[in-house]
Amino acid sequence: MKTYFECIPCFVRQALDAVRLATDDEYVHEDVLRSILRAASEMDLRESPPVMGQHIHRMIRHLTGEKDPYRSIKDRFNEFALRLYPELRKKVERSTEPIETAVRLAIAGNIIDSGVNSEIDETNVHEAIEHALTEPLRADLKEFMKALDRAGSILYLGDNAGEIVFDRLLIEQMPLEKITFVVKAGPIINDACLADARKTGMTELVEVIDNGSDAPGTILNSCSERFRERFEKADLIIAKGQGNYETLSDVDKDIFFVLKAKCPVIAKQIGCEVGSLVFMRSSAQDWPALKQNTQRR
Amino acid sequence: MKTYFECIPCFVRQALDAVRLATDDEYVHEDVLRSILRAASEMDLRESPPVMGQHIHRMIRHLTGEKDPYRSIKDRFNEFALRLYPELRKKVERSTEPIETAVRLAIAGNIIDSGVNSEIDETNVHEAIEHALTEPLRADLKEFMKALDRAGSILYLGDNAGEIVFDRLLIEQMPLEKITFVVKAGPIINDACLADARKTGMTELVEVIDNGSDAPGTILNSCSERFRERFEKADLIIAKGQGNYETLSDVDKDIFFVLKAKCPVIAKQIGCEVGSLVFMRSSAQDWPALKQNTQRR
Repeated sequence: MKTYFECIPCFVRQALDAVRLATDDEYVHEDVLRSILRAASEMDLRESPPVMGQHIHRMIRHLTGEKDPYRSIKDRFNEFALRLYPELRKKVERSTEPIETAVRLAIAGNIIDSGVNSEIDETNVHEAIEHALTEPLRADLKEFMKALDRAGSILYLGDNAGEIVFDRLLIEQMPLEKITFVVKAGPIINDACLADARKTGMTELVEVIDNGSDAPGTILNSCSERFRERFEKADLIIAKGQGNYETLSDVDKDIFFVLKAKCPVIAKQIGCEVGSLVFMRSSAQDWPALKQNTQRR
Repeated sequence: MKTYFECIPCFVRQALDAVRLATDDEYVHEDVLRSILRAASEMDLRESPPVMGQHIHRMIRHLTGEKDPYRSIKDRFNEFALRLYPELRKKVERSTEPIETAVRLAIAGNIIDSGVNSEIDETNVHEAIEHALTEPLRADLKEFMKALDRAGSILYLGDNAGEIVFDRLLIEQMPLEKITFVVKAGPIINDACLADARKTGMTELVEVIDNGSDAPGTILNSCSERFRERFEKADLIIAKGQGNYETLSDVDKDIFFVLKAKCPVIAKQIGCEVGSLVFMRSSAQDWPALKQNTQRR
């Protein structure tokens, strides 16, 4: 997906959020802001938004010397989600449609996105769970189960810390031996890294690898050679969150995108309303129909 | 008031809104966007936000050849407000506190601000009227009346088209012979110009002059010498809207600011919540107290 004009104000806001988290020094804030504006004035809009996101957050880490500004936010949401986990797991186990409930909860967890909303809190997560369990979900889960069954190897591209616990609920419903969970190689916003996979028990459940990159999505040419090989060889990709959708929507591969549409640009691109639960296959030809099947949130 | 970092994403959004109104040509949209980003990367943040606003909208008018992109919006809201006028005038006349009701309605009219909200519609105006008539208004109207009484000459600095009809309701409660209503000299967003003062009957009510400028506020060194003289000589200024507050809050003059706080930066600067009705005198020393007397909207 290309970068839309509407993404630019959002980059600026996100940069401000991140630099304020990294330092209280207002001179650094201004320095970062001016650098971002210059970079944005020259950016290639054919690139996906995470290309700019990667650039912005690298610059902030460089200028502030703070290697992981979102560390405490990531810890907080890992711990919060782990506290919710037993109850959510019961919801899945007691459901008449466990896979559907697990998909819904995995989408709910996608609300934990500090890139879109720097002020996300526990109440938002509770609301997102409630919403995800009741709102329309247009998903052909039989097709999904069939794809899981046929695939020899599956890459599950993770998104954020905290959210990773919600992904665990879905992965537990899948053939574990086929799954490799993928995290970012270096800190980027509140995206899950290896430490988060360890803290949330993901490493005990399935193989976990990193993608060699610090982009907030999966920019293949920013990933390691080793990861790209795994990506190419995988029979099926499950791509979680907006960043993975933005970076992989034009990649020719069998991908299930699982996310909550949190911004108007993504919602418009997908053809749904902001707030919709999105579960769709890259090869599906019927996305525009989504629009009629989702509700405004 | 200086420009805050938070104003920058808003400039970009406002530029996008305006250029899309002026032309459908996406190359021009991109051209404007990149130019704005470059200009913003170099701007002097000690200047008030309308300095950048003036620059942005001049650039858009220049690049698109469209001299008055908001003309149809201005006409629409002038006509809409004129349709509301008889009923609103009755409200003032039947009120036990006509001056207070007129102040409240003048503040309600300040919702018609395409700079802050490009999608403002008639429903928003009805809601703003309802809100303004019921929400707390912290205003020492006896002090205001006394100031009106003592002043020999009063400049009422107008804000937007449509809104000007709401200003008329307030001006009708004031000593007409002392009042000069001030409009912008050239098109800038949906700010009222002389044509709007004529269309809404303001010219028949009081003297109307322009300030010689096309800034979305009153940047004194961008105004005509003639206007500056009038400003200096005036005993009292009534400054309507956010733009006039942003440009005159640091000017040493007896000014009553009358506005609806529509953006978080302004609200924080004033010490109130977004949505609050603001009526305050520049010389007042007790603004921080506003905070406890206003409600979130």
